[in-house]
Amino acid sequence: AAPAPGEELKMVLVVRQDLKMGAGKIASQCAHAATGLYADLLASNRVLLRQWEQFGQAKIVLTCKNQQEMNRIKETAEHRGSGWV
Amino acid sequence: AAPAPGEELKMVLVVRQDLKMGAGKIASQCAHAATGLYADLLASNRVLLRQWEQFGQAKIVLTCKNQQEMNRIKETAEHRGSGWV
Repeated sequence: AAPAPGEELKMVLVVRQDLKMGAGKIASQCAHAATGLYADLLASNRVLLRQWEQFGQAKIVLTCKNQQEMNRIKETAEHRGSGWV
Repeated sequence: AAPAPGEELKMVLVVRQDLKMGAGKIASQCAHAATGLYADLLASNRVLLRQWEQFGQAKIVLTCKNQQEMNRIKETAEHRGSGWV
């Protein structure tokens, strides 16, 4: 579902704690995910990308316990109409 | 200076240790820097961006002690013809 025009958008990066990555690995994976998402949106939904940029390109990093919890977060995001990559 | 065609390119993210950021803060700052650089290159040097993408969008996260050390890394990068944002 598309966000309403003027709605604030955030990029949410979810890190699995069970992968026990160090800070450098987490940072590079988040950078990878962020540029990947940027490239995807550039190709598929430029309106959404511009809207996100207008709100300061907000990014949040969350952690979750494991793949199962990540799947639940993903389902919730999709249910609420948030995008997920 | 432009890299040679076929030369492998890496995005290097340098994190200042003296800022004492937590892992989540480091990750979100690196994601922010990475998408910012992506957007800059898209506007200013698309050839370089494509070349980096062809080499798997390599990213490395390094740490440095403080602003002074970061400035030295920046100078070295510029001296060697690497880009710096």
